[in-house]
Amino acid sequence: MNVEFVNPFINGLLNVMETMAQTKLKPGKPKRKQSDIAQGDVSGLIGMVGPQIKGSMSITFDEELALTIMERMVGERPAKLDAEVGDMVGEVTNMICGNAKRDLAEKGFEFGMATPIVVSGKQHTISHQVDGSKLIMPFMCDEGLAHMEICFDK
Amino acid sequence: MNVEFVNPFINGLLNVMETMAQTKLKPGKPKRKQSDIAQGDVSGLIGMVGPQIKGSMSITFDEELALTIMERMVGERPAKLDAEVGDMVGEVTNMICGNAKRDLAEKGFEFGMATPIVVSGKQHTISHQVDGSKLIMPFMCDEGLAHMEICFDK
Repeated sequence: MNVEFVNPFINGLLNVMETMAQTKLKPGKPKRKQSDIAQGDVSGLIGMVGPQIKGSMSITFDEELALTIMERMVGERPAKLDAEVGDMVGEVTNMICGNAKRDLAEKGFEFGMATPIVVSGKQHTISHQVDGSKLIMPFMCDEGLAHMEICFDK
Repeated sequence: MNVEFVNPFINGLLNVMETMAQTKLKPGKPKRKQSDIAQGDVSGLIGMVGPQIKGSMSITFDEELALTIMERMVGERPAKLDAEVGDMVGEVTNMICGNAKRDLAEKGFEFGMATPIVVSGKQHTISHQVDGSKLIMPFMCDEGLAHMEICFDK
């Protein structure tokens, strides 16, 4: 996978987290191995379709980190992963992908974004079904861990 | 949501299950309520993007049903929800959406399919983030329960 395709998503995540939730995530080492799977408690997923691009992106948060982000965004910490946290994760997923879409359009890669889907469940795993390469990348901060996955069919 | 949009997905699921896994699913009553959420052990999700259509579809299986489908498709029953069951669910998701895509194209509704994503995790929940209506529909058979959700932004 071209680094040109990956950086807009990473920058999108870092920007959205910093501007919306005053949370500075530290990117870990990206991996390409098929066996690495993102594990976490709440995930936002989104599909992408365009003439040159077909794929999916997901961002998975630990419960602790998701609750902290929610607290910083709305001023109150929910007791658990409720529907409002889910909506926040869906919104964040949409914003990250929207940021990347704008950046990639400037480079000549156009795609349409599907509507985001949010998955909740203790330690669920995500598996993107693509023929092309998958990139998984951890992000750390004091409040917990997030994983981003970006996958394209070609 | 127009019934014209929903039936192709229902027919896709019933056809795929019957032809690929000799499993006859019985459709339950569809619901439109926002508070109904699909709960299950393994889900296939796919995004759709087109000039008139933007949305997502998911199909969620109980572990028992997913293992039975796998057994009927490949002749051997896996001990648990492993990567191969996940691949099967991804493939089934792709086929259901592909069936619906063909039917809807004949009616003049064109859309592109993103790549499917498979989620595994005991009793996870799926929440489609759309502005438009969401339709959730249970499907039953002796071996267990499946839920399909179809959601469009408009």
